Amino acid sequence: MNRNDVTEKIITAKVSKGLKWDEIARVVGMSKEWVTAGCLGQMTFNAEQAAAVAGLFELTEEETKWLQVVPYKGSLSGPVPTDPLIYRWYEVVSVYGSTIKELIHEEFGDGIMSAIDFSMDIQRESNPNGDRVNVVLSGKFLPYKSY
Amino acid sequence: MNRNDVTEKIITAKVSKGLKWDEIARVVGMSKEWVTAGCLGQMTFNAEQAAAVAGLFELTEEETKWLQVVPYKGSLSGPVPTDPLIYRWYEVVSVYGSTIKELIHEEFGDGIMSAIDFSMDIQRESNPNGDRVNVVLSGKFLPYKSY
Amino acid sequence: MNRNDVTEKIITAKVSKGLKWDEIARVVGMSKEWVTAGCLGQMTFNAEQAAAVAGLFELTEEETKWLQVVPYKGSLSGPVPTDPLIYRWYEVVSVYGSTIKELIHEEFGDGIMSAIDFSMDIQRESNPNGDRVNVVLSGKFLPYKSY
Amino acid sequence: MNRNDVTEKIITAKVSKGLKWDEIARVVGMSKEWVTAGCLGQMTFNAEQAAAVAGLFELTEEETKWLQVVPYKGSLSGPVPTDPLIYRWYEVVSVYGSTIKELIHEEFGDGIMSAIDFSMDIQRESNPNGDRVNVVLSGKFLPYKSY
Amino acid sequence: MNRNDVTEKIITAKVSKGLKWDEIARVVGMSKEWVTAGCLGQMTFNAEQAAAVAGLFELTEEETKWLQVVPYKGSLSGPVPTDPLIYRWYEVVSVYGSTIKELIHEEFGDGIMSAIDFSMDIQRESNPNGDRVNVVLSGKFLPYKSY
Amino acid sequence: MNRNDVTEKIITAKVSKGLKWDEIARVVGMSKEWVTAGCLGQMTFNAEQAAAVAGLFELTEEETKWLQVVPYKGSLSGPVPTDPLIYRWYEVVSVYGSTIKELIHEEFGDGIMSAIDFSMDIQRESNPNGDRVNVVLSGKFLPYKSY
Amino acid sequence: MNRNDVTEKIITAKVSKGLKWDEIARVVGMSKEWVTAGCLGQMTFNAEQAAAVAGLFELTEEETKWLQVVPYKGSLSGPVPTDPLIYRWYEVVSVYGSTIKELIHEEFGDGIMSAIDFSMDIQRESNPNGDRVNVVLSGKFLPYKSY
Amino acid sequence: MNRNDVTEKIITAKVSKGLKWDEIARVVGMSKEWVTAGCLGQMTFNAEQAAAVAGLFELTEEETKWLQVVPYKGSLSGPVPTDPLIYRWYEVVSVYGSTIKELIHEEFGDGIMSAIDFSMDIQRESNPNGDRVNVVLSGKFLPYKSY
Amino acid sequence: MNRNDVTEKIITAKVSKGLKWDEIARVVGMSKEWVTAGCLGQMTFNAEQAAAVAGLFELTEEETKWLQVVPYKGSLSGPVPTDPLIYRWYEVVSVYGSTIKELIHEEFGDGIMSAIDFSMDIQRESNPNGDRVNVVLSGKFLPYKSY
Amino acid sequence: MNRNDVTEKIITAKVSKGLKWDEIARVVGMSKEWVTAGCLGQMTFNAEQAAAVAGLFELTEEETKWLQVVPYKGSLSGPVPTDPLIYRWYEVVSVYGSTIKELIHEEFGDGIMSAIDFSMDIQRESNPNGDRVNVVLSGKFLPYKSY
Repeated sequence: MNRNDVTEKIITAKVSKGLKWDEIARVVGMSKEWVTAGCLGQMTFNAEQAAAVAGLFELTEEETKWLQVVPYKGSLSGPVPTDPLIYRWYEVVSVYGSTIKELIHEEFGDGIMSAIDFSMDIQRESNPNGDRVNVVLSGKFLPYKSY
Repeated sequence: MNRNDVTEKIITAKVSKGLKWDEIARVVGMSKEWVTAGCLGQMTFNAEQAAAVAGLFELTEEETKWLQVVPYKGSLSGPVPTDPLIYRWYEVVSVYGSTIKELIHEEFGDGIMSAIDFSMDIQRESNPNGDRVNVVLSGKFLPYKSY
Repeated sequence: MNRNDVTEKIITAKVSKGLKWDEIARVVGMSKEWVTAGCLGQMTFNAEQAAAVAGLFELTEEETKWLQVVPYKGSLSGPVPTDPLIYRWYEVVSVYGSTIKELIHEEFGDGIMSAIDFSMDIQRESNPNGDRVNVVLSGKFLPYKSY
Repeated sequence: MNRNDVTEKIITAKVSKGLKWDEIARVVGMSKEWVTAGCLGQMTFNAEQAAAVAGLFELTEEETKWLQVVPYKGSLSGPVPTDPLIYRWYEVVSVYGSTIKELIHEEFGDGIMSAIDFSMDIQRESNPNGDRVNVVLSGKFLPYKSY
Repeated sequence: MNRNDVTEKIITAKVSKGLKWDEIARVVGMSKEWVTAGCLGQMTFNAEQAAAVAGLFELTEEETKWLQVVPYKGSLSGPVPTDPLIYRWYEVVSVYGSTIKELIHEEFGDGIMSAIDFSMDIQRESNPNGDRVNVVLSGKFLPYKSY
Repeated sequence: MNRNDVTEKIITAKVSKGLKWDEIARVVGMSKEWVTAGCLGQMTFNAEQAAAVAGLFELTEEETKWLQVVPYKGSLSGPVPTDPLIYRWYEVVSVYGSTIKELIHEEFGDGIMSAIDFSMDIQRESNPNGDRVNVVLSGKFLPYKSY
Repeated sequence: MNRNDVTEKIITAKVSKGLKWDEIARVVGMSKEWVTAGCLGQMTFNAEQAAAVAGLFELTEEETKWLQVVPYKGSLSGPVPTDPLIYRWYEVVSVYGSTIKELIHEEFGDGIMSAIDFSMDIQRESNPNGDRVNVVLSGKFLPYKSY
Repeated sequence: MNRNDVTEKIITAKVSKGLKWDEIARVVGMSKEWVTAGCLGQMTFNAEQAAAVAGLFELTEEETKWLQVVPYKGSLSGPVPTDPLIYRWYEVVSVYGSTIKELIHEEFGDGIMSAIDFSMDIQRESNPNGDRVNVVLSGKFLPYKSY
Repeated sequence: MNRNDVTEKIITAKVSKGLKWDEIARVVGMSKEWVTAGCLGQMTFNAEQAAAVAGLFELTEEETKWLQVVPYKGSLSGPVPTDPLIYRWYEVVSVYGSTIKELIHEEFGDGIMSAIDFSMDIQRESNPNGDRVNVVLSGKFLPYKSY
Repeated sequence: MNRNDVTEKIITAKVSKGLKWDEIARVVGMSKEWVTAGCLGQMTFNAEQAAAVAGLFELTEEETKWLQVVPYKGSLSGPVPTDPLIYRWYEVVSVYGSTIKELIHEEFGDGIMSAIDFSMDIQRESNPNGDRVNVVLSGKFLPYKSY
């Protein structure tokens, strides 16, 4: 047994039970973005959170333990994703990557925007020309250390 | 001559003149995100915008015409970027890609968040634990057409 | 269980029952192009369409639910397809890609032809020198947003 | 000197002269799709066509000869194109490739749709919800020979 | 069940029964080259041929149906084959590819040698310095269509 | 200077002088297949052959020496060729590779068909349904040594 | 069943029985290098040799037949091996490849050192500074044929 | 200027002067294998050796300094070499890699055969069936350290 | 059965028993770095160490034998790791690789830092700005042999 | 002009002047590890440091400005380095990557060891069995944020 087995069991159970990520997140008591990432095998739950997830998806005690083990992360197969929705994000990195780099360096100097001390918020924006997906990414700036 | 030649000339001139993207964007009269992407060879300027850019960087008439030609886009070499700042964004797609997909589909159904009818805003958030980079991505939702 | 399992079950059943995509599409009540893509795991059926597919292929209730979940898309393995028929399409993109880009930009300006708000129609054209395959692709033009 | 040098000279001249592919095609007397592909180094011109192209772009005699030599074809670098417009076509092959294969085989049996005995027509379709790009691809069906 | 399952069953049966491709081809009544390719999952049999193959290898009715379905072709894994015999052919394409291209274009003009309307004949040539493998490849020339 | 420089000079000179490979081969006194491969940088000429090639293409003494140095072979860039004519050969190896392997092993046992002690002959076959390209490949069989 | 299944069975049996390749080779009556390669699925045994191997590893009759079928060769996954011992050999080809090429061509002219008519001998050399691995590779030189 | 520039100058000079690696090695006073590797940019010469090489190839003082700088090693482009001679060595690693690993571990235990404390000797062996290339590779065995 | 099966069994047992690597290492009597690498299938245990591991994880006798067989090493899939923690180490090699090379060569001359005669020590350093991970890598310097 | 041009100029000047990294670092007044990384185009100098570097290598004013621009980082070409010294580090990540991950997570929980708030120290350790290279890597631990 490994974490992928638990992830697959969660996804299968979610479809057959007809649960929504938003409902699951409310049971766990954290944001829907972080809980979804955890259920998809990218984040580590603590014992209480793992118990809540286990209750929803009828996980065994051993499966619940796996939710508390740090996973090998990376949710996509292959360097270039084939799924059109995920590819659009990859395209944003490809087209705007050098722009993002220039503007963050102009504002902050040499360093990175952390993907660890990081949060994400996904919202619908109503719009008469077609609703929009708004995503806010927030990451701590970490300057390169010189020594 | 091609668009890359113009991009390299702009970057070289920017360093030797000590210009900032923010100043350049104010001269062009558009957002700093879009103008930077354009100067880096990813967007197409109209005649007036191209003239403003040409004035700043002392471009020839032919170089100014290239700014108005739709470029072959993609600002990174190789599928996996080696630069740490850009890689963190790639990592976000790798770690959170399936989460983003699940949550957008839960809210909107099958379709994508457009990377074309799309805008981006990068801001500094002051924070006593270290300032944060906040990025807002806004893209129109496009549902898959069935027929 | 996942969507691939359902796709494989549909393909196996189709061969053993000797059904045609054209017949299946008529039962579902949509075009043969879209229904085939859906049965091959690329599109999302609504409840009624899923029920029709389930009836034809004797799917279980859980399998029928999977037809209504947005799939991870991409029907080919590897970046360069080995199958001669599919490769010819890949070759069209390789040989004519820059031509298509030039002509769409000449007519419409910077932007893309949508692969989401998109339909496809495949027809046989009788021809004394050998029949021809005629394919009409229709996609909405989406201009790049400047901001 | 090679064909790529001639292609680059044509593209540079086209931008500085402000010519359109449609005008170029009318001078050459063939479709805009085929002439653009030829000017981009994918097709072979005969002497008369080459002379017309040479006149428009002020090519030397040697450059004009290269237009009549069969080129090494393939207009994209890398197996997965980074340009968003061209990628959408690649995505169509990825998402619909197995559908196209199934439907052509259902209608014609084992074989391929030729990419050699092939033509393409790109048209604008006015539409109140946003204009559409319509592309007609026509290729001879070639059955696999058994022996 | 899919075509690969049938291919593996045929190969396993061939080894345990000690059959030769030449004998199998004579039962099917076609060339040994084409029949071997079919048994290895690259060609489509008609009902009569499939019945002959099924008789030899004790295939079930469903397996026999799969022999009549157009397969996803490509018999090698990875772009560069590791098997020394197959690699020598790949090496011929690598070393002589540009030569073959030049000589076919010199004789026929722009176009291709078809790999669909194609046959192959493999023969032993006795030779005192060591026997030779002689392979005749015959493919229809298809000129590029201009339009 | 290296062999590629000489190859490019030969190809450029061939186009500007309008020479044919068949004529060049007759001057060198070897088959057109081998001479073309040599001029394209894949084979090593002896002093006399190199002098004949040098005379035709007005090579310098140093360039003539390079024709007599064993080259780094391989005439294609990338593992999967993009040119349609060369790809058809690659496709033959992909589709028929396992067939060729089976039939040569059935006839000869374990070993390979040499690509070194090897010759190739390309001929046109007139045919009312369209002329055919016939290619004869002849390679010595080399059995694996056991020890 | 295929050759890989037999290879895995042999390796598993070898570990549980605690046999050495050297002992196995003595039972088969050939060199330890060739017998090991055969047991690892790279060489073809004759009936007598296969019987000896089968006796040692308790193979079934069908498994014994597979040892006599020419295998699809190549014992490593991926183009660059991750195992440190095997990588050192890959590194030798990377660092010394051009040296080996130069020196063999200087001595023999254009051609190759055969990897088919080839043998290998691995010996320990005692050395006060640490024992050495000595490997002798012996391959027939095959000159390129001109025609 | 970098080491590659020096390597190219040496190779060009070697061809135009008609020198042999064996003669060069005798002037330098080391084995032909090591000297060739050094001239091809894989090894570091000391001052005296560099002076000998510089004298033969008329190198400048700066070029002579580069011969004494440790180079970035690796003499092949791409993971799978296209040159037939070098490929045969790559094939040996592919086919015999697991055999070599097994036999060295059987004799020495866990560890590697060094590619650094390593020497190579290439010799011709006369043979009535065709001369053979004999290569002796000698590398120190390094056991894995446990701690 | 192979070493990977044993590794997976150990990892699964470790999670369900709630053991720590540090405790396991103390039972085996070696450093936690080396024991963890061994349990993850990268190192070879001797009989006594294997018995200790087997006792902790309730391995069978055959599984215990596999721990004493030299494994095929390499604990990551794909050349670029997707896991953020492991990627940071890969990034260190990417960003600092040329620096490490320059400084080791400046101090020691041409050669390598051994990854075989090598040890690693991972420690926590308390720090008011956030604790740090300190890793000491120690490898024997091996000079390139000239001959 | 770009940063790579400055890096190449620095490396060329360092060889022709015979400077050592250690001396350069003392002039700049930072550690030899950080200064070397900066000179190799991986770090950003401030005005004073850039002036010191410029003085040593006789850089122009424009080149000195480039040293103060944040570079596109990544000092290696290709995902798998060919240089033996750098490869040994890559091998450490491959062999010990999962071990490092396990031990850091066991000590710190989910998160990463920063490669940004990071320093490195390379030292020689005298040793009668051959000197050792000791490298200390120190990176801040960053826990994954939950929200």
